[in-house]
Amino acid sequence: MPDETVAEEFIGFANELADAARDVVARYFRTPFDVIAKQDESPVTIADREAESVIRALIEDRYPDHGIYGEEHGQVRLDARYVWVLDPIDGTRAFIAGMPVFGTLIALADRGVPVLGVLDQPILKERWLGALGHGTTFNGNPVGTRDCGGLDRARLYTTAPDLFNTEARRDAFYQLYGQVDLPRYGGDCYSTGLIASGCVDLHVECGLKPYDYMALAPIIRAAGGVATTWSGDPLTLTSGDTFLGAAAESVHAPAVAILGAAG
Amino acid sequence: MPDETVAEEFIGFANELADAARDVVARYFRTPFDVIAKQDESPVTIADREAESVIRALIEDRYPDHGIYGEEHGQVRLDARYVWVLDPIDGTRAFIAGMPVFGTLIALADRGVPVLGVLDQPILKERWLGALGHGTTFNGNPVGTRDCGGLDRARLYTTAPDLFNTEARRDAFYQLYGQVDLPRYGGDCYSTGLIASGCVDLHVECGLKPYDYMALAPIIRAAGGVATTWSGDPLTLTSGDTFLGAAAESVHAPAVAILGAAG
Repeated sequence: MPDETVAEEFIGFANELADAARDVVARYFRTPFDVIAKQDESPVTIADREAESVIRALIEDRYPDHGIYGEEHGQVRLDARYVWVLDPIDGTRAFIAGMPVFGTLIALADRGVPVLGVLDQPILKERWLGALGHGTTFNGNPVGTRDCGGLDRARLYTTAPDLFNTEARRDAFYQLYGQVDLPRYGGDCYSTGLIASGCVDLHVECGLKPYDYMALAPIIRAAGGVATTWSGDPLTLTSGDTFLGAAAESVHAPAVAILGAAG
Repeated sequence: MPDETVAEEFIGFANELADAARDVVARYFRTPFDVIAKQDESPVTIADREAESVIRALIEDRYPDHGIYGEEHGQVRLDARYVWVLDPIDGTRAFIAGMPVFGTLIALADRGVPVLGVLDQPILKERWLGALGHGTTFNGNPVGTRDCGGLDRARLYTTAPDLFNTEARRDAFYQLYGQVDLPRYGGDCYSTGLIASGCVDLHVECGLKPYDYMALAPIIRAAGGVATTWSGDPLTLTSGDTFLGAAAESVHAPAVAILGAAG
């Protein structure tokens, strides 16, 4: 098991990484740029690749024995105790459309468990950082989730209904959707920041890779919420492709009851 | 027919109105506030009402013979040549969820035709202003739409698929959705700003009131785009409940061909 409290030096370093990525990403926002089709057809930009290169160079320099799991430039030393998990632009479609709800995601995994997460919005200059044992901050100030009391009062975010990758999952999502007070689309990773800040109660996605969800878990957990797979299992480097972020147990438990069978 | 060029004084005044609303709306963002259910069940906040009151007082003081058509506080002098059409918080659901894609919408209609429109995002301090004969600006700098060449290269925004209020309209929307390059949800009025800035190509909504679409038309038209009903008719105070904003004729024409029958 990982230590319960993240070392201070890792928090400072995660902020350095996010600062470096912010400069690169902001430079390319709302300017014409090439979009390159990857094998999985998701759009990936020059900004994405350049930002990850900058982050990786900093990690190689400071912690050459740590592992790196990046969206753009692959995996090294995954057998190390500490692995940095990187998605320089999570929500590339939002980025391409000029919508500032994408984010730079940086996670630190300790023996596969995410213990530190950064969600940085480079354009709005908004940063959520969650670290086990330290709480979650928004631009340096402590934030916390709310407890709305149950699904019928909950605000739910997902990116788009067509991203649910099986019929059972889509059906389960619509069942959940029908039970909440305020369902919204188009949140991308930004939805998790809104949970940490006490504005939103549920964030549901599937079809994810570790670099899509690893940073989100500590941001929600250290803010007082619950982050698991759809089945309610802990999120790890190998936990699968689902993510359920919840502001409180009062919305997490009924969401798992609905989504779990399809998870 | 209205004059082809909007009087300079109206542009300055529209900026004054948006400045006044911005202060009110920003004060309530991401703070606990009461949500009051209106007859149509859409959430409306104290911020919404207070901002419209502030705007209306300024209009009554400066142009007491102009009409006002507001979302929150009703209609006066709609028989006047000039009518100000107001939605202090368009996208109240986004506002409630803490997502900064809502906007303050202010339009000036000249004999029913929208000739001046403001879309202000009070949190990001972003303002699009379009006036016939003057072009469209973003925070004071001229912007223009792009021409992607056709639907297969187009980026499309709408708020949510469940907002299409008839089966024919939902079907037509999904047909359009299937033909574009990048469909996205959750844009609210902000999507029109992204069209004016050359990032997005299509913005489709229905179930709208005049205060939802009147400001959007001049922002798109003065930036070089096309804004009509789904049937391709001009947007006026009485044009109906549909809105189709397009960056260029190359995407507007095929969109009307798909949506028109359901419009």
